[in-house]
Amino acid sequence: MYKDLRIDRANEFEDEKVKIQGWLYNKRSRGKIIFLQIRDGSGFIQGVMMKNHVDQELFNEVKTLPQESSIEVFGTLQKDDRSSIGYEVFVDEVKIIQRAEDDYPISLKEHGTDFLMDHRHLWMRTPKQNAILRIRDEVNFLIRQYFREQGFILTEPPIITPASCEGTTDLFEIDYFGEKVYLSQTGQLYAEATAMAFNKVYTFGPTFRAEKSKTRKHMNEFWMIEPEMAFVDFEENLKVQEEFVEYVVQNLLKNKPKELEVLERDTTSLEKVKAPFPRITYTNAIKMLQENEFEIEWGDDFGAPHETFIADRFDKPVFITHFPAEMKAFYMQPDPKDPNVILGADLIAPEGYGEIIGGSERIHDKDLLLEKMEKEGLPKEVYQWYIDLRKYGSVPHSGFGLGLERTVSWICGIDHIRQSIPFARTLNRVYP
Amino acid sequence: MYKDLRIDRANEFEDEKVKIQGWLYNKRSRGKIIFLQIRDGSGFIQGVMMKNHVDQELFNEVKTLPQESSIEVFGTLQKDDRSSIGYEVFVDEVKIIQRAEDDYPISLKEHGTDFLMDHRHLWMRTPKQNAILRIRDEVNFLIRQYFREQGFILTEPPIITPASCEGTTDLFEIDYFGEKVYLSQTGQLYAEATAMAFNKVYTFGPTFRAEKSKTRKHMNEFWMIEPEMAFVDFEENLKVQEEFVEYVVQNLLKNKPKELEVLERDTTSLEKVKAPFPRITYTNAIKMLQENEFEIEWGDDFGAPHETFIADRFDKPVFITHFPAEMKAFYMQPDPKDPNVILGADLIAPEGYGEIIGGSERIHDKDLLLEKMEKEGLPKEVYQWYIDLRKYGSVPHSGFGLGLERTVSWICGIDHIRQSIPFARTLNRVYP
Repeated sequence: MYKDLRIDRANEFEDEKVKIQGWLYNKRSRGKIIFLQIRDGSGFIQGVMMKNHVDQELFNEVKTLPQESSIEVFGTLQKDDRSSIGYEVFVDEVKIIQRAEDDYPISLKEHGTDFLMDHRHLWMRTPKQNAILRIRDEVNFLIRQYFREQGFILTEPPIITPASCEGTTDLFEIDYFGEKVYLSQTGQLYAEATAMAFNKVYTFGPTFRAEKSKTRKHMNEFWMIEPEMAFVDFEENLKVQEEFVEYVVQNLLKNKPKELEVLERDTTSLEKVKAPFPRITYTNAIKMLQENEFEIEWGDDFGAPHETFIADRFDKPVFITHFPAEMKAFYMQPDPKDPNVILGADLIAPEGYGEIIGGSERIHDKDLLLEKMEKEGLPKEVYQWYIDLRKYGSVPHSGFGLGLERTVSWICGIDHIRQSIPFARTLNRVYP
Repeated sequence: MYKDLRIDRANEFEDEKVKIQGWLYNKRSRGKIIFLQIRDGSGFIQGVMMKNHVDQELFNEVKTLPQESSIEVFGTLQKDDRSSIGYEVFVDEVKIIQRAEDDYPISLKEHGTDFLMDHRHLWMRTPKQNAILRIRDEVNFLIRQYFREQGFILTEPPIITPASCEGTTDLFEIDYFGEKVYLSQTGQLYAEATAMAFNKVYTFGPTFRAEKSKTRKHMNEFWMIEPEMAFVDFEENLKVQEEFVEYVVQNLLKNKPKELEVLERDTTSLEKVKAPFPRITYTNAIKMLQENEFEIEWGDDFGAPHETFIADRFDKPVFITHFPAEMKAFYMQPDPKDPNVILGADLIAPEGYGEIIGGSERIHDKDLLLEKMEKEGLPKEVYQWYIDLRKYGSVPHSGFGLGLERTVSWICGIDHIRQSIPFARTLNRVYP
């Protein structure tokens, strides 16, 4: 007679008898009433337990029930306009599955970040962390849906790779049955190979950088989406990027309003994320920074303050285009009008979230590629397959890489990237 | 005036002037006609080039154009019932983007597997390999769509882990800034943590085993889907598995008939993949094998011949249930009626494809878990977070893991798992 309720679908069960399987997130008593905060993984709801309506022994037991005990709650779902989800449960009965131990580490008071990260497996039960990871799940799906609708094929690159894809530093090394191999930093080169077989492809997987970086934007293990498109040039590449980012952000706003509300995210700036995005060349960005008292020279890389300053000049994500070739990876196509710069762009998110996309047209001429590889000191044997792509049916092609966690952090408006992944791996953390 | 054509959508362009961007897969000339086999990544189509209809110089150039040259083809799309896709292109013009070098390694004759795997980046351009990876992409999406529809949240586990999840052998070790860590063999334990926060979750990512195995069913890097469900017991777990496998297989049959045709896959057996699936206990399977002259004892693991023999007794995937606890991982729930066996099952695919799923109810009692961990010699500090899940709101829960490549291999009916992933990693292979 009690119907199974998922809290996020409460509106389908008004005035019905429902059963909720979940956990006691919090409670407070006021004489003859206990207010239960119940979570079931899909949301949070308040249960109201009246002493005169339930078994007396049960009432007393629930009164002392520790936080995070697992329970089944039976009752009537009632409309309640004071509730953030619009409903509460008038409780008939509670079945206790496991009485949690008394020393639950995460109380509702403030904790330090290290303590919370040590208890990440429990921290993610709290409303904000839960909402962030739900948004991550949605972003994840929207990305795949976008590329599927556009006719892209998912082609996962290998994680274990014989060589570095973007230079030889910052690599985690593995002993592979006696051979030295590395954890992949990017799947891009492999995506170029599959693009020549499938035309439009994307990768989506974990990537690894052994950087000793401690900023709030870096992790050593993170997920990247790397689309690669045959017969697509620099201009079209930017168009795909802005349409793609618009698609993800606008659909996320539509699909996850409650989660954004839990995060108290001001979505004004997200609502403006619509193609086309503004563009500025690297050279003009340097000028703009110099005019505003930044000490920076043409050829220098941007730091966080530079990116933020540039981003703040625009009300949407902004493309910084035509970086110096010297600063960027060997495979980026030089601009025919000025070979000192490349036909590539970084996309900088608003509000200080920094670079979320790096992309470019790729070199499709074999001789130019070989020249660049030689300059970089890359071993030809290991890259023979990559050179083959320029020998047999080379075409102009372009692609980009979007960092999932940076995108999720930006959308959620959170202050550290480690909250945007279930279990972060940073310089000092491989636990839990 | 020429419309952009994607070959897989040819039926929308009958009798229209079209432009195809792609590659010359093959050609043959007969006097005044050249038949071009064109591939564009979405499919293959024949182009017919008549000497008296095109530029003479172009005709002669195309006549000697090497395989895999990149081209743009302009012409009229005509119905042709002899063609496998129902259409051909009557060519007005060909624009050559890159004349491929003459030594294209993969000719249309037979090659050895090692040679083909050395040229995997080119091999995947051929119709069968291309079809397999398109089916992989579709299976990948269907899996995600199924779990999304059922309310599961994707929670990626870390790849870099401080300890082994299923015993301490067969691990790839990494030096993580001076600390010994490992590539993840499974995300399951982490999925248990997220299931307690989100109720129904799944992981989907690469996993790694340093096994020195050379069978046609093993790779050292492969992708797993690992759903985990709070408040779900052994029985319900099997129900989810059979519904899930039915969903993926039946939708795949519906969505990818052309690819299955290219692979000459007899789909009779796949059409029967509908829930419920037959079940046999481990104990009865042993008896059945013994009655059929196999030398096997209760407590022995199944080898490929055993699995195939059992699978052949049924016309659908079959669950082998209640394995001896000694044979299985420490976290599997013992059967209360007979604690020597566990409340878990392997799902064996038909036609000799072997185990595609392993799953079980998990131990939710803290003391029993600690007992099992001690017996296994697992360090408590490293697993403290996992033990916490039994201290704070423990509930009966179950889950399973499906191997993506084995599933794709079975659906495609191919003879070696290495073809089911873009770039395989096996005992002797990390290239390309």
